Amino acid sequence: MKSVDEVWQLLRDEVTSREAVEIELADALGGVLREEVRAPEDQPAFDRSAVDGYVVRAQDASELFSVAGEIRAGDGRHHDLTAGTALRIATGAAVPEGGEVVMLEDAVEAEGAVRFLRRGRDHVRRRGEDAKAGDTLVKSGAVLGAGGIGLLASLGCVRPKVTRSLDALHVATGNEIVGAEHAPSAGQVRDSNSPLVAAWARGRGLLMRQRRVEEDADGLRQAIEGRRDLLLVSGGASVGGHDCTADVLEAAGFEILVTKVAVRPGKPLIVARRGTEWAFGLPGNPLSHFVCLHVFVDAALAAMRGGPNAPAVWSGRVLAAIAANPRETWWPAMEEREGLRPLPWTSSGDLTALAAADALVRVPSSGLAAGAGAGFIRLR
Amino acid sequence: MKSVDEVWQLLRDEVTSREAVEIELADALGGVLREEVRAPEDQPAFDRSAVDGYVVRAQDASELFSVAGEIRAGDGRHHDLTAGTALRIATGAAVPEGGEVVMLEDAVEAEGAVRFLRRGRDHVRRRGEDAKAGDTLVKSGAVLGAGGIGLLASLGCVRPKVTRSLDALHVATGNEIVGAEHAPSAGQVRDSNSPLVAAWARGRGLLMRQRRVEEDADGLRQAIEGRRDLLLVSGGASVGGHDCTADVLEAAGFEILVTKVAVRPGKPLIVARRGTEWAFGLPGNPLSHFVCLHVFVDAALAAMRGGPNAPAVWSGRVLAAIAANPRETWWPAMEEREGLRPLPWTSSGDLTALAAADALVRVPSSGLAAGAGAGFIRLR
Repeated sequence: MKSVDEVWQLLRDEVTSREAVEIELADALGGVLREEVRAPEDQPAFDRSAVDGYVVRAQDASELFSVAGEIRAGDGRHHDLTAGTALRIATGAAVPEGGEVVMLEDAVEAEGAVRFLRRGRDHVRRRGEDAKAGDTLVKSGAVLGAGGIGLLASLGCVRPKVTRSLDALHVATGNEIVGAEHAPSAGQVRDSNSPLVAAWARGRGLLMRQRRVEEDADGLRQAIEGRRDLLLVSGGASVGGHDCTADVLEAAGFEILVTKVAVRPGKPLIVARRGTEWAFGLPGNPLSHFVCLHVFVDAALAAMRGGPNAPAVWSGRVLAAIAANPRETWWPAMEEREGLRPLPWTSSGDLTALAAADALVRVPSSGLAAGAGAGFIRLR
Repeated sequence: MKSVDEVWQLLRDEVTSREAVEIELADALGGVLREEVRAPEDQPAFDRSAVDGYVVRAQDASELFSVAGEIRAGDGRHHDLTAGTALRIATGAAVPEGGEVVMLEDAVEAEGAVRFLRRGRDHVRRRGEDAKAGDTLVKSGAVLGAGGIGLLASLGCVRPKVTRSLDALHVATGNEIVGAEHAPSAGQVRDSNSPLVAAWARGRGLLMRQRRVEEDADGLRQAIEGRRDLLLVSGGASVGGHDCTADVLEAAGFEILVTKVAVRPGKPLIVARRGTEWAFGLPGNPLSHFVCLHVFVDAALAAMRGGPNAPAVWSGRVLAAIAANPRETWWPAMEEREGLRPLPWTSSGDLTALAAADALVRVPSSGLAAGAGAGFIRLR
């Protein structure tokens, strides 16, 4: 039986990152950057006006300036500044050399001439003030959010190198499960794990196929044929005679690295490897299944993507006590401004807490007093 | 000039939620549920074994039981328990009435008979122990994550009612901007706002079209023809003569509700309404633009979707001081376990902080001392 930390360490040490590919920037949201992105030119590339206003010679102390023209944003022409004259200038327009910008609010224009109420404020974004040409602005390993994508666009990086999409297969096993669109007969339950895994995969940008098979070795053997980055098998991981996941994986050439983890809910977790492929046998009970996906499979995914380790464990404070238990527990909770509110659950089969849960709190086997500090992971 | 809180209040009071539609559960990730979802039957619907093991009559104190058969998961047949006999039972299988389940680890089976090392532990998930038929398990207004989708599937809710997809148009204006795939000439800059808005919209499931126009009234007038839930115009919101967004919106029948907000970066923000449609004129400077999207447009989106208010403002602690400024500032930062690490930025045009930022810290005009508490919003 391995501890949670041992499984994380194993995955971080052994799971290898996948190849990087160049993709369209528009498709890069959530991707892990696999190159350093540098400024192709100074940022900004030229002195730019930060305001709408007027530009005059910085040394020109005239009282009144005649308005001799205009520099709009995007105007690439050369403009000379002459004594006693001002040019109107727009936000973002190039400031001629030696120019001082006075903002519109500090000026009074009448009959082709302008007087300034105030001078000497710096309303110019100077060439190179944000970064110099060649500076590394985005590091390899960064996860690209909307802001990062905007930054890459501003640098002309329109085909960033990111980790390729990961290819996954999910197989739900179990003779008792029926599709959620069917009314269960006596002894049957609806398959909630398949829709849950599909949503989890969609949120992570995985290419995921799904199958549902009877819980027998032949069905599972056929279902898992082929290769992919990640294989998930729901159900079939506990100790009974019909639970064949480990046997089938082993027969297919996987090395079984973990069969049990000291975690609640979720103990019977299988982790296996075949070359660079990784397989997880997830407990069929839906809450265990959910916890194992977010605590363990996310760790493997992060390592494949070559970005920051996942899951990120944050520090919080629980708003109610959680009892001791022989096993470390990952407890569904709501993250509130004041702390983490534990949600009730009755068993590893009880999904009702997941209507509101947006965190899993790590509860040591000694339990947590109300107000105690605890690690937690975020679900959204 | 409105305060941030006044703009939020306006949006929360005035923006109306859009219609709800039934969609496939597989497409519901991130959707806002617009109905109460109840348990169609008791949860679980029948007494289920929580383990692999044996089932015997609860009152049967025999030393040795003959193994008379097996109940697999999904087995819908009726099984009688008789004195002195045990049935093998799998996790998830229906427990016959009056049965007690003994787990495999507490049993020794040999030659068709089984002896138990331990009795009396409750290994049965009782019918209705999670919820009773008719109980509301997911409330209207819930945002559906992977866990919520799994829960809906378990309840047979395969076509949930959620707020329909929102329809949006983004128009980038500015004579100085060129597509990020082009090398800028003198006085030009790459358009980073369009890829940024596209990524922002994709992350929120918006149906978004995008256009880029010259910064003149005719171009903008044509570009915004038609109707949609949300219209975003980047650039053209400041005070200069060529900044025509407010005029064009007004001419198109929009009521202008806000033209300036006391916020840095981002002051020249336009908020306008035409019936149920909302328009935002966002400052063209990319950092201002980014802040206004996440602080204001997200608030309007949340109101349209009918879910929880956004942006959610969390409580944290800054790891370094931030200086006072006449305007409230939303400062890019990294959320670390210890607190919020403010990132450097030089102007409202400086996107470099967004490589690493995953939070915006709300800095009051009086500034923040190192270690001071502060509100912040999360960007991911």
